[in-house]
Amino acid sequence: MKKYAIILSGNGVFDGAEIHESTMTMLAIKKHGGEYQIFAPDMEQYHVVNHMTGEEMNEKRNVMIEASRIARGDIKPMSEYNESDFDALIMPGGFGAAKNLSDFAIKGPDCNVNPDVEKAIKDTVAAGKPVGALCISPAIVAKVLGDVELTIGQDQDTIKGLEAMGARHKKTDHGEVVVDKKHNVFTTPCYMLDANILQIWEGAENVVKAMNKKMK
Amino acid sequence: MKKYAIILSGNGVFDGAEIHESTMTMLAIKKHGGEYQIFAPDMEQYHVVNHMTGEEMNEKRNVMIEASRIARGDIKPMSEYNESDFDALIMPGGFGAAKNLSDFAIKGPDCNVNPDVEKAIKDTVAAGKPVGALCISPAIVAKVLGDVELTIGQDQDTIKGLEAMGARHKKTDHGEVVVDKKHNVFTTPCYMLDANILQIWEGAENVVKAMNKKMK
Repeated sequence: MKKYAIILSGNGVFDGAEIHESTMTMLAIKKHGGEYQIFAPDMEQYHVVNHMTGEEMNEKRNVMIEASRIARGDIKPMSEYNESDFDALIMPGGFGAAKNLSDFAIKGPDCNVNPDVEKAIKDTVAAGKPVGALCISPAIVAKVLGDVELTIGQDQDTIKGLEAMGARHKKTDHGEVVVDKKHNVFTTPCYMLDANILQIWEGAENVVKAMNKKMK
Repeated sequence: MKKYAIILSGNGVFDGAEIHESTMTMLAIKKHGGEYQIFAPDMEQYHVVNHMTGEEMNEKRNVMIEASRIARGDIKPMSEYNESDFDALIMPGGFGAAKNLSDFAIKGPDCNVNPDVEKAIKDTVAAGKPVGALCISPAIVAKVLGDVELTIGQDQDTIKGLEAMGARHKKTDHGEVVVDKKHNVFTTPCYMLDANILQIWEGAENVVKAMNKKMK
């Protein structure tokens, strides 16, 4: 049974992990015979957004505590991730990937990546194990690995940002997966396109199927 | 295309809507050709729970604003629900159903149901349209309708509570759906059993398929 580590960045598309992408990633792993452990950094969120209005709320929330809502309490701090315990690493999207796991949403190509997330990606890639990234999460992979082939869909400004970090971008449509064979990186656009929830499921399932195939 | 109204009770199993059940309900509706609008009561949550520790947090959160995280912002207040706009009504579970939509978790069979939720169920049943309920949400249906056949799985204490409100309970296992043909009520146990995420998907899909069949 292949064991995935899933990295979440909070709980909600505008300031954390995208909930549908996170849930579908878990479902896809389980449906295709795998198991998973969820991780998130134990740190304060960049900010808290009212998802009805888009406005910032005068609150502080912790990334790991909020992500534990998606995980139903079964979550570990990112600092405890050890690649030797897992067969694969995967990151759903949501602005949390670009506000909490990194600050790509604020600083663009000059962004910083959370050191525990950076180490997790580098260690996993160095061990020859697959790394998956959905939606905007490929921006993190681009910053960490530089010369990597990936996709965030079709948004021109984001594509320019990824290319400025050294990545090679391939345009994709709903459910398509880009595979970087050198680094074993698997990416799919999900909600970086104007998608419905069924298309998110297709993207999550396709990326997990591609990663499983690599692990056979 | 059949249009569902989905009632959410927050965002997180211990104080709001169960996230996997909510997401899977949306996916099941979309996969089987339907569409949906999400509703939640515009009210303060009963309390806020740290999902890592199970302890109460010294915070206040609004049910509709938190539920809008699952809805990606596309949500309406429960008070705006009108059965004539929809073909079916469905409630995922989570403690929010028993703490926010009702106070069944606190008062048991003597609970009260949020008046807008009660009206939504009564109006929908009166119009002969199907009402679905997952996990602990059937407790709300039991309180509102009384003599109705339903399931919350196998938990004896909860079953006694439902029966005290006049309901007839049928024991079920993962993915099974109980249909009350008189009221067109469709229930499935989901996380009221010790379930994995794939079993939640099966439950959500089966209840939506059963409701769709009724609407044909």
